[in-house]
Order: sequence, then C-alpha cells, then structure tokens
Amino acid sequence: MNSFGNHFRITTFGESHGVAIGCIIDGVPSGLGVNEEYIQTALDKRKPGQNLYATARREDDKVQILSGVFNGVSTGASIALIIYNKNQESSDYENIKELFRPGHADFTYFKKYGIRDYRGGGRSSARETAVRVAAGAIAQKFLNILDIKVQSGVCSIGDIEGENFDFDFARTSEIFALDRDIEELQKEKILEIKKEHDSIGGAVIVEVLNMPVGLGEPLYEKLDAKLADALMGINGVKAVEIGEGVNASKLKGSQNNDQIDKRGFLTNHSGGILGGISSGQNLKLKVHFKPTPSIFKEQKTVTINDEERAFFLKGRHDPCIAVRGSVVANAMVCLVLADMVILNISSKVENIKKVYS
Amino acid sequence: MNSFGNHFRITTFGESHGVAIGCIIDGVPSGLGVNEEYIQTALDKRKPGQNLYATARREDDKVQILSGVFNGVSTGASIALIIYNKNQESSDYENIKELFRPGHADFTYFKKYGIRDYRGGGRSSARETAVRVAAGAIAQKFLNILDIKVQSGVCSIGDIEGENFDFDFARTSEIFALDRDIEELQKEKILEIKKEHDSIGGAVIVEVLNMPVGLGEPLYEKLDAKLADALMGINGVKAVEIGEGVNASKLKGSQNNDQIDKRGFLTNHSGGILGGISSGQNLKLKVHFKPTPSIFKEQKTVTINDEERAFFLKGRHDPCIAVRGSVVANAMVCLVLADMVILNISSKVENIKKVYS
Amino acid sequence: MNSFGNHFRITTFGESHGVAIGCIIDGVPSGLGVNEEYIQTALDKRKPGQNLYATARREDDKVQILSGVFNGVSTGASIALIIYNKNQESSDYENIKELFRPGHADFTYFKKYGIRDYRGGGRSSARETAVRVAAGAIAQKFLNILDIKVQSGVCSIGDIEGENFDFDFARTSEIFALDRDIEELQKEKILEIKKEHDSIGGAVIVEVLNMPVGLGEPLYEKLDAKLADALMGINGVKAVEIGEGVNASKLKGSQNNDQIDKRGFLTNHSGGILGGISSGQNLKLKVHFKPTPSIFKEQKTVTINDEERAFFLKGRHDPCIAVRGSVVANAMVCLVLADMVILNISSKVENIKKVYS
Amino acid sequence: MNSFGNHFRITTFGESHGVAIGCIIDGVPSGLGVNEEYIQTALDKRKPGQNLYATARREDDKVQILSGVFNGVSTGASIALIIYNKNQESSDYENIKELFRPGHADFTYFKKYGIRDYRGGGRSSARETAVRVAAGAIAQKFLNILDIKVQSGVCSIGDIEGENFDFDFARTSEIFALDRDIEELQKEKILEIKKEHDSIGGAVIVEVLNMPVGLGEPLYEKLDAKLADALMGINGVKAVEIGEGVNASKLKGSQNNDQIDKRGFLTNHSGGILGGISSGQNLKLKVHFKPTPSIFKEQKTVTINDEERAFFLKGRHDPCIAVRGSVVANAMVCLVLADMVILNISSKVENIKKVYS
Repeated sequence: MNSFGNHFRITTFGESHGVAIGCIIDGVPSGLGVNEEYIQTALDKRKPGQNLYATARREDDKVQILSGVFNGVSTGASIALIIYNKNQESSDYENIKELFRPGHADFTYFKKYGIRDYRGGGRSSARETAVRVAAGAIAQKFLNILDIKVQSGVCSIGDIEGENFDFDFARTSEIFALDRDIEELQKEKILEIKKEHDSIGGAVIVEVLNMPVGLGEPLYEKLDAKLADALMGINGVKAVEIGEGVNASKLKGSQNNDQIDKRGFLTNHSGGILGGISSGQNLKLKVHFKPTPSIFKEQKTVTINDEERAFFLKGRHDPCIAVRGSVVANAMVCLVLADMVILNISSKVENIKKVYS
Repeated sequence: MNSFGNHFRITTFGESHGVAIGCIIDGVPSGLGVNEEYIQTALDKRKPGQNLYATARREDDKVQILSGVFNGVSTGASIALIIYNKNQESSDYENIKELFRPGHADFTYFKKYGIRDYRGGGRSSARETAVRVAAGAIAQKFLNILDIKVQSGVCSIGDIEGENFDFDFARTSEIFALDRDIEELQKEKILEIKKEHDSIGGAVIVEVLNMPVGLGEPLYEKLDAKLADALMGINGVKAVEIGEGVNASKLKGSQNNDQIDKRGFLTNHSGGILGGISSGQNLKLKVHFKPTPSIFKEQKTVTINDEERAFFLKGRHDPCIAVRGSVVANAMVCLVLADMVILNISSKVENIKKVYS
Repeated sequence: MNSFGNHFRITTFGESHGVAIGCIIDGVPSGLGVNEEYIQTALDKRKPGQNLYATARREDDKVQILSGVFNGVSTGASIALIIYNKNQESSDYENIKELFRPGHADFTYFKKYGIRDYRGGGRSSARETAVRVAAGAIAQKFLNILDIKVQSGVCSIGDIEGENFDFDFARTSEIFALDRDIEELQKEKILEIKKEHDSIGGAVIVEVLNMPVGLGEPLYEKLDAKLADALMGINGVKAVEIGEGVNASKLKGSQNNDQIDKRGFLTNHSGGILGGISSGQNLKLKVHFKPTPSIFKEQKTVTINDEERAFFLKGRHDPCIAVRGSVVANAMVCLVLADMVILNISSKVENIKKVYS
Repeated sequence: MNSFGNHFRITTFGESHGVAIGCIIDGVPSGLGVNEEYIQTALDKRKPGQNLYATARREDDKVQILSGVFNGVSTGASIALIIYNKNQESSDYENIKELFRPGHADFTYFKKYGIRDYRGGGRSSARETAVRVAAGAIAQKFLNILDIKVQSGVCSIGDIEGENFDFDFARTSEIFALDRDIEELQKEKILEIKKEHDSIGGAVIVEVLNMPVGLGEPLYEKLDAKLADALMGINGVKAVEIGEGVNASKLKGSQNNDQIDKRGFLTNHSGGILGGISSGQNLKLKVHFKPTPSIFKEQKTVTINDEERAFFLKGRHDPCIAVRGSVVANAMVCLVLADMVILNISSKVENIKKVYS
C-alpha cells in the first residue's frame, strides 16, 4: 500500500531516520528528458533549514537516479530515485522512545503494528514527502509535453488570509506566500508563534493552467476524487476544496452553475471539473493544513505501557507545515495529472487508431 | 475504472436511462447473512418521490441478488446486484439532445468520449448512486461484525446550519436533518428555493462509532485519503473535511493537538485519524454538496456544434442533492471501512498466526 | 478477485445454478460497434448440446447488454452483459450434496469457504466460461481495429494428435479439429470414451495473426506471463506452452534462436514473443486440458463429514473439455491482447503527443 | 508494470549495467525477523562465477536493506532492497551497440520504446532476477510461519532427464541436479555444449511441502494461474506444467482423477491444486527453460537501421540458464504463496472475527 497512481505510479520507501528514502516510478514513457539537476531544483524548494520560517533541521536531500534513464532520456524502464538520509540526530528522540507524541501518528502506528519505531516518526514522518516532490518533478516534466502548468502557494497562515494571488510572487517568497501585500504579516505571525513555542495551521492553493478537456476516469477514478485522495493523504491535511469548495454548499444553483457561450464557460465555480472530468478550465484547489503537532509546550500523554507523562518536546520543527506543504501539494497534483493524461488516451477508439496507424 | 476498493471492492455499471444499473461486489467473505429485503431497506432511504423535498420522479429501485448468496448466506463468490430501470421518461430529454446543460457533465463527457448520451446524464447521472447505497448496505452488514456503526445526516441547507446533532432524529426526518430545532427552517428553505425554480447547496456530516484502532494503510491507502476519495467522488461534492477540517488551518498546535491520558484522548480535533490510521475515536467527516445544477431558470449554453442557445430545463429534479446525498455518503464510508477492516488484517505476523492456527 | 485485465478488464459473477451469470467490461473505448447478435454468435460456438461430442445438457445462453452501449456503439461507460441461467436441473446434484466429487473443486471450495454450494460446482463450474467467451467477442471486435486475428482449434484428443493444422477447417468441425485427416479418428475416440463412461484429455492450439510489435509490459505484465495466467486459469488446463514450449528445454541455442535478416525473422521458435514483448511474428500457444473429472465410473470419495463413500455420478457432461475449451482459450487470448494493445500506447512520449495533438 | 503480487507485492528497478538493481517489498507484516545475512545466503545460490557450469562473469551481489526493518524485525513499512552493480564490462557490448542479438529482447525493446539500451540487455537482462531471489528469501521467511517449504532443482539438461528426485541432493549439487545418478552426465553435457560454443535448454521442478488447504482466489487469482504467470515471466521460460501437466491431455478421467478416502487423496495427479485452490497436497510444478540465446557461433542479424550483419558474440554467458533459473523459479513460487497466504485470510467471516476478537 505504498504505491500511488495507476499507470504513472510511484512506490515509495524509507523512514525519517533510516538509511535512505526513495521511490520507484513506473509508467514513465520512453523519450522524456530527465536528469538529476532538474529533480534537485524541485527538491531544494522543499528543503528545510533555509530560513527562519522553517525548521532549522538541515536535510541535504541529494537525489540520485538509479535506473530507467540512459543518456539523459527515460527508457521506459522503471525509474528509481534515492536520497540518503543524513543529519539525523536520533538522540533527539531518545526521550520519546516510549511516549506517544500528541497529534502525531505514534499512537496509531504502535497500535496497528505493535512496534514503536520512535526515530522521528519513522515511516509516518513528513520526510517521505521529499520523495513525492522528486517524483512530482518528473511528472511535471511529463506534463510539459502538453504545456500543463501546475502552480501553488500559501494563501493563509492561521487567520491571516490573502486575497490577491500571484503565483510568480509565491515562487520567490520565503514562505511561498501568494499575496505580496500580506506576506510580511504572515511571516510575523510565524515568528510570533515560534516565540510562543507553538505552531500554526495554514492553507494552500494549487492552480493548474492549460488543462486539456477530458482528464478523469468515471466513475471511480474521477479527477476530483483522485485529487482529494492525493491531497488529503499529505501529512497534516484536514480538508480539501475544489472550485467553490465549502462555499458551494451555501450557494443557489443559479449562482453556482457555470453558463456557457461560444467563447466557453462564463465563470469557473466548478474549479475546472464537471462530473469528475476536466472541463479545460483552470483547476482550482484549496488544501488546509493543521498546525504541526510538534510544539514546545507541556502536553499530557501516555507511554506505550499506558503510564501518564508530562511531555516536553525537543528537536527542531516547522512552525507551519503549510509552507513546505505547498510544494508537496504541487507535486501530488502533478502525479495525479500525469496519471490521468495517460489513462485518458484510451477513451476513444479514434485515439487508439492514431497511435497504431 | 468503474471499481472502488481494494479487497472489498465494487464494480458498477449502468446509465440513468439504460436497461438496468447494478454492481458486482468482490471480496465479501463467506458466512455473512445477506438478503434482498435488508438491502431494499437501505435503498428505500435514498429513493426519490417520497416527499416534497426531493424530486417527484419515482424510481422503484427493486434490487435483486444474482449471485454469491446461497440460502441467505454469502458464499465467498462475487455478489452481483441488479436494479432494473423503470419510469425513465427519456422524452424529458428530447429537448436537450444536442445541448450541454450548465453545471452538468454533459460537456466533459462529450469532449472525452465524442458521444452524447443525452438520456438524463447517462453514466454521469446520480442514479448510479443507488448502486452504491445497495453495496454500502452489505458493507454495513459486514461492519456489524465489529459493531462499527456509520451514521449520517444533513447539517446545513444553504446558510441554515444546525448545531446540536442527533443522528437518531436525522433517521426519521424527511430531509435527514441533524438538528431538530432548525429542521423546519431547513424544510422551508427548500420549498422556497423550489418556488424560485432554483436549487440550493447543503452539507452532510458522517460519524462513525465503535471504530477499531489501526484502520488505514500507510502511505497511499491512508484512511483519510480514501475517505476523501470516496466522498469527493459523489456527484456534486466540492469539499471534504475531517475532524477540525477547514478550521484546522486557523488553529495553533496547542489548540488542535489531542492530548492523552490513561482514559484515552482528551479531545477529538483529529476526527479519529492520526497519520492516516484510525485512533479508535469516532470518525468525524463533513461533506459539502453544491446546489443541483438542474434549475428551471433560463441559462446560456451551447450545442454540441457550438451554437449558442437559451436553455430551459424540463423534468423533475431534487432542489437539494445534499439530502439524498447524505445516504450516499454514509454508504461510501461503509465501503471504505469494510475494505480497511480487511486490509488491516495482515498488518502483523501475529494476526496471520491467529487465522492459520 | 473476480477481475481479469488491467485496462481492458472484466469482472465476472455467477454460479452454474444461480439466477444468472455475467460480467462488467471496463475500459472499452468509446466508438466501438457492439451488439448482442455479434456476441451471441461467439457464444453459440461454445454452447453445449449441439452434437454427440459434447454434453447433452442444453444451455440457451442468451446474452443481453445492460449498459455501456448506445445506438449500437460503445460509449466509454462500463459494459454489463448478462446471461440468465435456464435448464439447470439442480436435482441432478441432490445425491452429491454432501460429497466431494473427485477431480472437482468441491473439496477445496468447501475447505476455503466453509460452505458447500453443491449445485453443479457453483462458482467453480466451467459455466462461467460462457461469460469469458462473450467478453472475448467484444475484445476481438476491438482487436479488429488493428486487424489482429485470434484463431484456435483442437490439435489432440488423448494421444491422437494432428500435424497439419487448418484453422478454417477447425471453425467448421464439430470438435474444432485442426487436422482434417484425423478429425474422424478423434471423433471416434470421444465416442469410444463416452461408451466407457470415461473422459479424455486434449490439447488446443491458439494462433494470432497480424500481431503488432511491442505488446507486453516488462517486467511483470509480460505478454507471455499474462497469456500463461489467462490460459492456466481456464478450468481443466494443466500446462501452457509458448513457441517451442516443452521442447525448448531439449534444444541447443543454435537450434532455438530465430536469426534475422532484412525480411525479418527466419524462423519462429519463440512463438512470437521475446523478452515478454511481441516480436510481430504470429503468436503460437498450446494449452493442455485434463480429462473432465465428471466420469460415470465408481470412485472413492468422502463426505463433508469425512465419511467414506462410493461415488456414482449422474447428469450430463462433456467427455472432452478441450473441445469447448478451445473456444474459451481463444476468448482469453483476445482479452489479454486487448489489454496489451491499450497498455502499450503509453510506451513512448511520441505516442502521447500523437493523441493529444 | 514493474510490480508483482497483490498484497505481498514487489516492485523492481534496475538494468544489468546501470547503477544498481533493487526492489520495494510492500505488504510484509510487522514482526518478521529479517536481516541482510539471511537474504545474502539466498542470493549467493544464484550468484554466477562460482563454477564451470555457469558464466565466469562475477557479480558480487551484496544486498542492503534500506528501510522497513528496525532492530532486525519488519515494521510493516515497505522494505527496500538494493544491490549495486559492479563488474559490468560494458565494453563487452560495444560491438552490439546497433545490433539485435538473435533470441534476445533487443529487437522488441527497441521497437517498443524506440531506444537501444545496449548495455547487456538493460532492463531485459536476467540480472534483474537477483532481486526476485532476494525478495523471495523474505517471502520464504514469511512462509516459515506456516511451515510451508518451497524446494526446487534441475530435472533435465537437454535430453538428459532425471527420474529419482532428491531435493536435498539438489541443494548441494553445483548444477542443482535433482537426480544424483545422472548429475555427472548432465554436467558433462554442459561442458560439451560450452566447448561447442553453443548452449542448451533444461527443465526445473519446484515442489512445495506442507501446503495449507485453501490458497488461491477464484476466479482470476487462482493459484495455478498465478504460478503460471510467475514462472512464465522468468527470462527464458517457454512452458509451465502443473501436476500431470502436458501428460494430462493424454489421460482418461479415470486415470487422472485423484480419489479420496479418510486418509486424504489417494494420488496427486492434480499437482496439489483443484479449481485454482490448493488442496493441501504438495504442489508439483515443472518449468521449461529455453537454451540461453547467448551463443558463440556466427548468426545472421540486422542493425537498428535494418542492415544485415554476421553476428559474433563476445562476453561471458551461462551455457544453461535452467541451472540458475531453478533458484529464480523457487523465489517466484515463494512470492506467489506469500501473497496467497495473505489473500486467503479474508475468505471467511470466521477468520476476521478471530483477528479482531
């Protein structure tokens, strides 16, 4: 159950403090230009330890391609990527060896597997998302063939919400803020929260430009369902909205319907998806991250033997996971779309004739 | 791509105005008591034409078991269910033969498949959800083995939101309202909207009691991700929230973390899922439905030949799909959980020994 | 576990003496001409009760299309087929209610599921293969787009083996015999065996003409592996050979290698597959069926309570399942190839560009 | 398409002359003792360069566990294994850069992917089978829980066929010969063939002891079908037989049926599988390998530009791939059975109660 996708499919491995993390990407067609530098650039966006707003923990995150690429071009064979773990200070975790950290997966993993891999969350750590970003970069490369462009950024930190979104600005912002007018406020919020030894939630927007019509496979590989799957599966995500999202439940049909004329749809309340299939309009997605559970205040918890303890966290952690989460959300959307581009090919007999003629 | 689930798995067929709809359910263990009456009871909850608040269109929806059950007990063979279509007035759809109805999947299906199955939405119609409800009833029967209880109801109609939720009340309410104090207001809202020839959105809550710890398969069959997949895939759903949901992005870690003592978790902000695995607390899910796109006001649209038209809808339609949607959401959660109960079995060597000893 | 195929995928249901058998076919692209008459023609080839060489049991086997086809053309939606069961004389099976028939799956199904569905084998009955033949007809229709032609016939009955194979002759032979010179001998063999109240094994050859190069997905959806899966899964098959088959293990490399010149391969020892991928040469497959276990001689067996019994079979049964098995083998090969044609499309970036440009 | 198995599932990567080969194993339950030494022992059986009868090419094949194991015990997380490639003399392949080697997959891979990864077969090389052996060792470890024992050996080299099989002897034989009386003859045969610059086919037998009843999932994950899939997918395999195999097509029902009395089945013609489900008898499988296509005689071939060439092979190659193939066949059977053990758990409601009570 460590695979995502049908045809363009990743299978991942690795724990936060194990030897390495990595993945195998299956279904990359031959003839795609792929190299380590390109993937590294994507990875570096997610890399922690780069500024005040993320964890001071440094992860070098050097990606290596092990297979599937020959002379800089994909061969059609499975592509394996590996990132060796460094700078893991397992000693940070000595004091939690037998404790369940509140808000973390420690409790549920222990109950499910009967084993306490206490080293920084083990498999449940968000460290694994580095692999998603690396694989997502290859997916984005694949989407370039069709000029599909996935972009993302942070729209809100706690209750400080942006309004005017600029994805180009977000790319250059240290916190990937979408609204330049409130970026400073959002940064201050993060520093304030850090000072309080607390953490804060945030929300991310992903938008996709140049969408082809027809992506999404009814009825159980619908585009919206698969995006929800992909995004809700990211560590810390608690809500996913598409188009009008939550607001849609408050609207009337006459407000929410997107009417059509010769030039196309007049509005985009749907977020670019109708009946689980892309309409050709831009995709509009919103993802809500909870505050990181790693806070530095005293909390009540129990040990694996059910003894009560006062818990004090050590180590280095992100005050707001939504920031780096925006990079991961972007990657997951790329992975979904790459898969959907391939699945859609066989929708019509006509397409099949094109390929084989 | 008409299958849902890994091990407890449904594969569905049928269009709203075809011969029949139905499904094959794979992975039902042998020894489960199953009969048509039981499934019919579940189906009847979703059945339209029963009161003023749903479409006047009557669908008889008599379910028949074709296989997999012998003397009232599942045999381990695949279970096929069929519901023959009746009362389809295809003539209702004559005038939309070449039109794309705004807010419907007409446009996207036509672009994807090159074919206009104009009879009431064809495969994209919510009629298919009857099958999900029938299959969901068998899943709930399976969950009964572990006393897992899935319940659902409508929390808001447009901006009329309930606060005090009573799932027992919802079961008896004609609109499955969760809050008895505002049920009357919500009913009035629906009738008012009907009079306006418009429709209205709504939100649904699904809660699960007696959850075992350990359901959910990391990292790509996480319980939350699969629930999001299942729920976002229902016709008209535009947002899915788990636990604090959207609100989580506004909270601090110290507010959102669920601390633990000997008696268990002190709060349930997480909605019963940590790291994609159930914590044993109640599941808390919220699903937002858009207003049904079928409204009786003039709308702009185009034909399949891209000619502009003023569109006037005929036929009979739900003013608020969230109402019947709450039954479908319940069924989808049952299907996810049944699958997860089975997947979880092989988490430990210990479990395997129990079975084979 | 009632599904076969990845993209062109069937999911089947039904027991020999239940209400109906049928399937859902997923992944048929839109735009394929499909109708009941065409499928019926294929089914009629498999139908028993047509001559002296098969069981006298009559199965009417009228197939009906329930979904996925509109105005004679596939719409891209899942296609459901149903065949209602008739002429099931369950009374034939009263005397075996608690017995395990030697050579049948009675014993293993009972031990696995704890339930004895004694009505003619239930789910394990070869009756289900009617559905494969119906689905295979749609697959063959799909393969027609590329002019791929799958043909099959019986090469041996017991030790009476043919040498000169003529697939056109086989189509008209009552026992689908490939060699017209020994057909008469083979028929006599069957009648002789019937008179002995015994049964006899047989072998079938499947050949595929006009194969495209490139079908088969390394490394775990290889064409040869999937054909072996498909063919070994047919009731009664005990061996599958490709190209030189068993004989390959006796040859030298210099004998077995297919050398190449400008005109192509000089020989076809490989059977048209190299490295799990089709070479463009004809596929050559051989399938060995065991004698039907249903014989009319006294046999030792036990009851479900482990009491010893002398067993005497009643009912009507094929003396040689290889005969009708040749129709099923043909269908299974069609299903594999249809799937492989679709999977192969995304092998190259170039193909994807063709479709989306 | 680089994954094998449903629940106990491997996904592999790597080319013969790339950086590394390896796999991710998904679905290993927590609590299984796993370490590198154990896997290495299995790998060393397959390792070439150990005697006169295999290729002189040395592959060090040091396996490393990257994840999923903590303190010597599986954690339930995906297990990644890696084997770095060494001793690849790519220069050996300079002269075939543009040639298709007869009997190899060069031609089909080039036609499918449009790329010539000429370095020793690339992804199509049997080098990948080292990974299968490593993963198979973990599967065997898992099977030990139920005392299931998979054993294999070589029964024939060319036409020199053994009769009295001794799997203990095979384990110690340099050519894994099953019959000690003809081992010497078989060895001479191999040396003779080497001297002729040719190669030779061979056959392998796999037997499984202590099989539980009930493994195999009807109708499309039957045990026999999956074994055929697994075995036919091994490089060079051209035929798979189960139980009586090819011979079954020559027998009468009265000869082939396995009658039953209180002590169990009186014979084992079925090879331990009835209706696709294990009967509890020993599994009996036979696998036929073609002669390795790598021979040192002049052969006709063409270049990627379709120019005719006389081809002379360089390098070091196995004269008989069946020898090392017997180790791979053993591993594949282990992988199938591990998967089936897990799948079977949910066959009965009763089993599920056992786990959750």
